[in-house]
Amino acid sequence: MVEIIKGNIIFTETPDNFEVIENGYIVYEDGIILSVTKLLPEKYSDCKIHDYGNRLIIPGFYDLHVHSGQYSQCGVGMDLPLLQWLKKYTYESEKRCENPSYARRLYEKFSQDLLRYGTLGAVVFSTTSYEGTEILFEEFLRTGIRGYIGMVEMERNAPEFIIKDLDYTMEMIESLINEYNDNRLVKSIITPRFAPTSTKEGLRRLGELAKKYSVPVQSHLDESQEEVEWVRSLYKKDYASVYDEFGLYGDTPTLMAHGVYMTDEEIDLTKDNGVILVHCPDSNINLSSGIMHSKELIEKGVRLGLGTDMAGGHKLFMGEVIVRAIQLSKLLTLQEGMSNKPLTFSEAFYMSTVVGGGFFGKIGKLKSGYELDCLIIDDDQLYREIYSIEDRLSKFIYTGDDRWILDRYVSGKILNV
Amino acid sequence: MVEIIKGNIIFTETPDNFEVIENGYIVYEDGIILSVTKLLPEKYSDCKIHDYGNRLIIPGFYDLHVHSGQYSQCGVGMDLPLLQWLKKYTYESEKRCENPSYARRLYEKFSQDLLRYGTLGAVVFSTTSYEGTEILFEEFLRTGIRGYIGMVEMERNAPEFIIKDLDYTMEMIESLINEYNDNRLVKSIITPRFAPTSTKEGLRRLGELAKKYSVPVQSHLDESQEEVEWVRSLYKKDYASVYDEFGLYGDTPTLMAHGVYMTDEEIDLTKDNGVILVHCPDSNINLSSGIMHSKELIEKGVRLGLGTDMAGGHKLFMGEVIVRAIQLSKLLTLQEGMSNKPLTFSEAFYMSTVVGGGFFGKIGKLKSGYELDCLIIDDDQLYREIYSIEDRLSKFIYTGDDRWILDRYVSGKILNV
Repeated sequence: MVEIIKGNIIFTETPDNFEVIENGYIVYEDGIILSVTKLLPEKYSDCKIHDYGNRLIIPGFYDLHVHSGQYSQCGVGMDLPLLQWLKKYTYESEKRCENPSYARRLYEKFSQDLLRYGTLGAVVFSTTSYEGTEILFEEFLRTGIRGYIGMVEMERNAPEFIIKDLDYTMEMIESLINEYNDNRLVKSIITPRFAPTSTKEGLRRLGELAKKYSVPVQSHLDESQEEVEWVRSLYKKDYASVYDEFGLYGDTPTLMAHGVYMTDEEIDLTKDNGVILVHCPDSNINLSSGIMHSKELIEKGVRLGLGTDMAGGHKLFMGEVIVRAIQLSKLLTLQEGMSNKPLTFSEAFYMSTVVGGGFFGKIGKLKSGYELDCLIIDDDQLYREIYSIEDRLSKFIYTGDDRWILDRYVSGKILNV
Repeated sequence: MVEIIKGNIIFTETPDNFEVIENGYIVYEDGIILSVTKLLPEKYSDCKIHDYGNRLIIPGFYDLHVHSGQYSQCGVGMDLPLLQWLKKYTYESEKRCENPSYARRLYEKFSQDLLRYGTLGAVVFSTTSYEGTEILFEEFLRTGIRGYIGMVEMERNAPEFIIKDLDYTMEMIESLINEYNDNRLVKSIITPRFAPTSTKEGLRRLGELAKKYSVPVQSHLDESQEEVEWVRSLYKKDYASVYDEFGLYGDTPTLMAHGVYMTDEEIDLTKDNGVILVHCPDSNINLSSGIMHSKELIEKGVRLGLGTDMAGGHKLFMGEVIVRAIQLSKLLTLQEGMSNKPLTFSEAFYMSTVVGGGFFGKIGKLKSGYELDCLIIDDDQLYREIYSIEDRLSKFIYTGDDRWILDRYVSGKILNV
């Protein structure tokens, strides 16, 4: 059935600027956009129109890096250095997800909060718990948002109580792939925590599994200086090449979180292999990791998405992540001079919607042929008549929250929060 | 009448750590705290107790630098360089406050939003409009929060449509002082916008007025490099000394916003004169001004408070400002090495509550002799039993918002939002 929504449509066709259709129509059928127009085509004149009036219609957000098992600890212990933070809070948080009733309550709230904040798809590190990961799948499916969910592979260099035997882990990951990969919205992703907690054997087998089932891959890359040196001492090569050696760097669609400290060779490999780097600005400051050269990487041809990295990051709302990416980029410009221009609002928005959505399918633009994933924004009415549609979007991203989101569409269907 | 509230009390006695009294009692009378105890003294056993159960009782927030006239534009135009941002949005916003019905609606929302977000006192730049400033006083008085409100003096180096004749401005400022200074909660503050928009004559007369009525002073100081050079070219001396020459640098209690680029001489003068610097981290990044050396200034003996600097900053919630101050401080440590330790959570909290509250009176600690300004925090219940009171406060500051604030007390009285 053809359906229509009407409102002030705004999205990014390219990173350079916004496309705006004031009082425009989006015509869609079976979740796919048929046309987006200023005037309603005659042939649709009998269709029912859901008229959102002066509200904004914008793409949804996609969080490309988030740790579900850490959700209860967000905003806690942020004064601690990374290793103490992991030891005092994070591993304990993840361990608790072995308990099904704990995981159920946590993941129900996590999934619903993602939706509430307009995140229509998330790529998630679960934990090393198979049962917990199953519950996370179930909660995503119940909530109705898109997801790539990875049971985490960890064999060493972490507390005994959280690591798992490799054979067991491999069997369980394969079982999850078989169990869930027929779902359209929620699927598996191969997830070594990061190179230091895997063995070569583990990475090799994960790479083979990714290839066997054509499943995407996610991990961490070049987050902090210490970590980069650690990886080099363990593997005697650069960080990206470790993953690449084992078929975990772009052989299937691949996300790598952080990329703060990239060598020129790694940048080239990333670009050539089409690996997407996930910029997590709040986490990078909270954990004192550093500032990613986001604008420079984009100009060199690397694709960048955005992630909350909850609980290294503390806010689930992707508007916050967009703002922080712009803010950090401005600080780099201050440090390194104006030849290094900061990220613009449209560029950061594009990262979260078009690059983010693109990992899930033809998603992230409000144009013909794309799936209809979108948010209806009922923005602040204080003198909004003074401001342009782009200014109003900026106000939502900078100052808004979940209360500004009136409706959430995934593949043409309104989801309830 | 003696009254009592009960809950998990947390505040900072010193910047170094939190004082916590779990399930403690605050006994108060006529807005003043009589005692704060773990066990209720026998003599109060007949008094009615307002029991907040497992909730947190924390001091209120105090925003020491905010521009009321810019409130409608928060989050807009943040890609623009400072001067274009001022020209395209800010001066226009301020001009609109000449219109009483515009100002009424804006300031009603502004005052109520401050309270909603737990800001129990604010030091405000109004605009050059006398009528607009009167309306702002009225709205603060109606809302019930504490305020220092300054009609802005600007004579030059800004668009004609916004500057005012000096004689007129001086007369109106004096009139506002006489009109409102008998109020206990909302008073006048002398407010030259910043040195470049004043003349020496203007600064001299403002200094005399401050002294005549013992009224405090606020302005901007050392916000960006260009501005610092501009001031030096106009006045042939450093920025702080310009104000100091005219009795506007500590002769009465004085706030100076920013202080990103301070010379050693200015730091000494600031410390010796007891001037409070107001750190506005979000604004400093949004406008690409720079990173204040907050921790270093504190260690040198300068008192630092926090401000939103709305609309250079984009969030009214002081929790965001606390977090951003910590984050920027971590970035400085990354740049300059670990000898430059980052601000801790308790230090940043202290800035917003004890230094901030201290500008308004004996306020900001939950202890005997202080006025009872406090917030009741109904925090996230997801597994909160796992976390300490301090962790729960951290979670509120990092991830919470106005919805977490159950009640707001100013001087012992609950205010309604």
